[in-house]
Amino acid sequence: MNAIGSELWIGPKADRTELSALARQLRADSVRASTAAGSGHPTSSMSAADLMAVLLAKHLHYDWGTPDHPANDHLIFSKGHASPLLYAMFKAAGVVDEHELMTTYRRAGGRLQGHPTPILPWVDVATGSLGQGIGYGVGIALAGRKLDRIPYRVWALCGDSEMAEGSVWEALDKAAHYGLDNFTVILDVNRLGQVGPTEFGWDVERYAHRVSAFGCRALTVDGHDLDEIDAAYQAVRMADLPTVIIARTVKGSGFSEVEDSPDWHGKPLPEGMAQRALEQLGGVTDLHVRGPLPEAHETEPHPPTARSAPTPVPVSPPRFEQGEKVATRKAYGQALAALGTRAEVVALDGEVGNSTYNEAFQKEYPDRYFQIYIAEQQMIATAVGLSVRGYRPFAATFAAFLTRAHDFLRMAAISQIDLSVVGSHCGVEIGADGPSQMGLEDLAMMRSIHGSTVLYPSDAASAAALTMAMADLPGISYLRTTRGVYPVLYGPDEEFPVGGSKVWGESTQDLVTLVGAGVTLHECLAAAEELARQGTATRVVDLYSVKPLDTENLLRCARETRLMLVVEDHHPQGGIGEAVAAVLAAADRGGEGGGVAARFAHLAVDSLPASATTPESLDAAGIDAKHIVAAVRSALDRREMGASEPRRQA
Amino acid sequence: MNAIGSELWIGPKADRTELSALARQLRADSVRASTAAGSGHPTSSMSAADLMAVLLAKHLHYDWGTPDHPANDHLIFSKGHASPLLYAMFKAAGVVDEHELMTTYRRAGGRLQGHPTPILPWVDVATGSLGQGIGYGVGIALAGRKLDRIPYRVWALCGDSEMAEGSVWEALDKAAHYGLDNFTVILDVNRLGQVGPTEFGWDVERYAHRVSAFGCRALTVDGHDLDEIDAAYQAVRMADLPTVIIARTVKGSGFSEVEDSPDWHGKPLPEGMAQRALEQLGGVTDLHVRGPLPEAHETEPHPPTARSAPTPVPVSPPRFEQGEKVATRKAYGQALAALGTRAEVVALDGEVGNSTYNEAFQKEYPDRYFQIYIAEQQMIATAVGLSVRGYRPFAATFAAFLTRAHDFLRMAAISQIDLSVVGSHCGVEIGADGPSQMGLEDLAMMRSIHGSTVLYPSDAASAAALTMAMADLPGISYLRTTRGVYPVLYGPDEEFPVGGSKVWGESTQDLVTLVGAGVTLHECLAAAEELARQGTATRVVDLYSVKPLDTENLLRCARETRLMLVVEDHHPQGGIGEAVAAVLAAADRGGEGGGVAARFAHLAVDSLPASATTPESLDAAGIDAKHIVAAVRSALDRREMGASEPRRQA
Repeated sequence: MNAIGSELWIGPKADRTELSALARQLRADSVRASTAAGSGHPTSSMSAADLMAVLLAKHLHYDWGTPDHPANDHLIFSKGHASPLLYAMFKAAGVVDEHELMTTYRRAGGRLQGHPTPILPWVDVATGSLGQGIGYGVGIALAGRKLDRIPYRVWALCGDSEMAEGSVWEALDKAAHYGLDNFTVILDVNRLGQVGPTEFGWDVERYAHRVSAFGCRALTVDGHDLDEIDAAYQAVRMADLPTVIIARTVKGSGFSEVEDSPDWHGKPLPEGMAQRALEQLGGVTDLHVRGPLPEAHETEPHPPTARSAPTPVPVSPPRFEQGEKVATRKAYGQALAALGTRAEVVALDGEVGNSTYNEAFQKEYPDRYFQIYIAEQQMIATAVGLSVRGYRPFAATFAAFLTRAHDFLRMAAISQIDLSVVGSHCGVEIGADGPSQMGLEDLAMMRSIHGSTVLYPSDAASAAALTMAMADLPGISYLRTTRGVYPVLYGPDEEFPVGGSKVWGESTQDLVTLVGAGVTLHECLAAAEELARQGTATRVVDLYSVKPLDTENLLRCARETRLMLVVEDHHPQGGIGEAVAAVLAAADRGGEGGGVAARFAHLAVDSLPASATTPESLDAAGIDAKHIVAAVRSALDRREMGASEPRRQA
Repeated sequence: MNAIGSELWIGPKADRTELSALARQLRADSVRASTAAGSGHPTSSMSAADLMAVLLAKHLHYDWGTPDHPANDHLIFSKGHASPLLYAMFKAAGVVDEHELMTTYRRAGGRLQGHPTPILPWVDVATGSLGQGIGYGVGIALAGRKLDRIPYRVWALCGDSEMAEGSVWEALDKAAHYGLDNFTVILDVNRLGQVGPTEFGWDVERYAHRVSAFGCRALTVDGHDLDEIDAAYQAVRMADLPTVIIARTVKGSGFSEVEDSPDWHGKPLPEGMAQRALEQLGGVTDLHVRGPLPEAHETEPHPPTARSAPTPVPVSPPRFEQGEKVATRKAYGQALAALGTRAEVVALDGEVGNSTYNEAFQKEYPDRYFQIYIAEQQMIATAVGLSVRGYRPFAATFAAFLTRAHDFLRMAAISQIDLSVVGSHCGVEIGADGPSQMGLEDLAMMRSIHGSTVLYPSDAASAAALTMAMADLPGISYLRTTRGVYPVLYGPDEEFPVGGSKVWGESTQDLVTLVGAGVTLHECLAAAEELARQGTATRVVDLYSVKPLDTENLLRCARETRLMLVVEDHHPQGGIGEAVAAVLAAADRGGEGGGVAARFAHLAVDSLPASATTPESLDAAGIDAKHIVAAVRSALDRREMGASEPRRQA
């Protein structure tokens, strides 16, 4: 131990006594912070304290003053509930002080959340939904090994309970597939979960067998033997495989009253117990750590720091002839390939790249294309990890199968990740393959993700333009693409600002506004033509931006027409219809000054679809031009509507 | 081969020649059906034809005339895209005829969907989202081994690509955990996925290693050697573990032009090629199969047949004192335990039973309680399998973590499964644990599931009553429960019909309707009291039934008041607010006869939440009584609203 001024410092050459003192401090601080907060998981922290003490002092290469240093190691607490331990480490590293730890943990306005989030500059990703941290680590390690070529290491601390999540095995499989020898999982086998013993207790060999089978190196250690832990961390530097260190530990280790007890999960120790725990742990100490700094690296990483603004480079988006029939999914693929001139753009596939057209990017930029196979959770997790390192991922699969990654998308929003997601084959439009392949819930899912942008182009021109726009959108952005080919509606220089919409066939005589996107826009256009033939002037809104919504234009159309009919190839809940309804319902509905008079109507897929041709599917779901015309006729004929004249603007 | 009349029959004693002829027919029919349909996956069918021929003729114990026979084996095509093969088997079994196969496959109005669904009486579950069939099979096998104690076997045919899904490993882990020796996976390793070679090609040992590590028995076979296949099927009957038969196969096997070609995934053969394929396969044949019948079983299964109506038994729901403070999650647990007198009720846990209170059921009925550990996908998959066998599962975890199982819930709806799902710890109400644990997207997710029912009680009395109701609801029903304790609002005999709502404090003077559920109902009630003090008469709607919605009552309140403010502890998209907005927007808004005059307003969680106390969290999200009062004040003060007098009914 070295004294600098009044502080005691522990460095990479720390001996067993010093490491033990640090581990006791991490435990004591975990107890103190959670008792002060009145909630938290001290016992789940204590089991991993020795593992983290050795890591922090001797193996985590990190410049704590420069959290954006490109060669910093990355530490992910997949067992996010052990946040007291992580924050105790931050205190030992000198970046969180005693006051912050003891007065802000789990409290409003503080950075020390119940589960870690990237509000803290030393935290890459939010955790707390178990089984996710390994997946994110794979993405970050992939960036280091395959893209940045910076010799940082990624360490993920996991609990044994979360090994039951399939996502963990998707992650380890990909760690091995991509040869991520810079990736280490530290598995804290304390044998006790929330409700009691875990599935395998202390059977560390069982975990080792699985880890090996999934292509990673398994090392088993006594998680409280500092020398064994140290040796394992040294060994991972020699491995040419990702390593999982399987550590047998004791929950609540260090305080006899809670050690290995199933009754102390997720409970702070009451004051008296906390006091006794501190006595056993050697009291309150203020050891600081100066661990190893990042390793030198010669290559200039790209991008130079995480989340830095990319240098603008020319991008030549694809151009399409108006009237030409092109699938939006194909236009997306071409636009994505064009975006490849921007070196931060990467693409991920769930083994359907020839359906989503992500393969167009693969052909041009194979080094920035990652095949994750049919593992949608890991596809999103990898994308999150790449985004942490400043890349701009485009992850694509069928819209239906994105539901598989819902929890990862939810957590990515909490991590405030910038990420583009693309779902193809939306809706009943796909026809013959049947309902299992039809994305009919994706708009509800993606709209409800915090801070998301949801885009839904109807033609190739808008699909390409919106793909371009997505590359710079903050948060989770989603592009919904369609299987079939449809006419290009717009010229190549048309602009599609996010939050905008387009209006077709507007006149002052319009009685009806039809609102559609994707295939239903084409059906709306056909219906408007038929309605015009029947003498009912109708305009059509192309709602290519579902979130944010072009509220202004929708309200204008609602003021100027009698009926606003939204038609969508999605279940009725949570999609375009309800988004528009919320705008109309909240609007002024009368009085002076042009209140909203239009009544809202909605056609969506409310039945269970089946295999059929595309026209049959749209017909069966009641969302084709024929049904649109009939719905408009029926609504206009209703006595109630006839009774109140629409408010019109000249 | 035996001739009966003009038909040739193959039975359990079939020899190699006969089995080979059957396999050729299954291939030929797969080619013919998909070519006739103009879409489908013939080559993925052909790789598994030998595996299925032997199974059908010699090992699948099935009474084809009685698909509900309780002792029938269960066959699940997890690789649902190989539906031509399954339908060719049905034709060979004599339950689908030549005409149906050749003229209805993948066509509107037919039963032979692009991917199998239970429209067909011999299909238990819809497949087509890969990696799910094994999980469902585990649930069905669990019912047979642990509940019904009927000696049926479950066979699941899987593709190699889908082994990349983590859900497959969750399933195999649980198959081993529950000792399901009646469960067999047949893995068709044809080495080619949709975009090219799979991750492991023909490395069958890799799969075997993983399968063994996950506690199942691995048998590797040549998937085109009929004797080897037969021996493997015989061997699984001897095993005391679940078995995975790993079969090396050739995609497109049987037709030289497509064998082992990466270019023929998911493509029907053009007419000319199909003709040449038939020539190589021996032409069109009409072999029929009489495989083994179900094994005798002595115990009376419960329930006697799948999906039969349960016998009514007395259930004593828990009763609560009005004013007593009880968490809805706890009331749910007590009601679930009370439901245990109904022998078809089973419960599943994702290792949080002491949080969701599912553990109340476990204590009373441990034999009908299944711990799935932290594997939400498999929790739902197991529930689906149990439901197939006529049980009524209640599967519960945190609302936030149900997103993990979104794709399984989506597919369960397509399977038309009856299933109760419970999500606890909804919303920012949970406070200190932070955003990773807060269910803020679950209403959007569960509302958008086809045919779902969504219930959201605010007190213990309604929570218990709705739990009772759920046990008999068709489709996927969802109960959203809250962490904290709140006063019991209703007496023990109050009824809560699904699709209903309750109104508090209604008067003819009301200017405002507040709509809430869960914690926000309590905030609405507090706000209404404060507004009354301020002279603004306000009623409150308890919207305990979110789907279906009490449209009639909502419209009545909207006609009778000026403002309808919906307050929810959920993101603004896809929840209660938009559901109500859609009703209001679609309503008549003026004219004679009491049109809807009330303007809609909405308070929901639109910011990224953080750790805090419950009151601080509700405040920060802007959904507490204080914000409700302020929103009402602001809306009523708006000039636009003052300009148009509300239409009131006496």
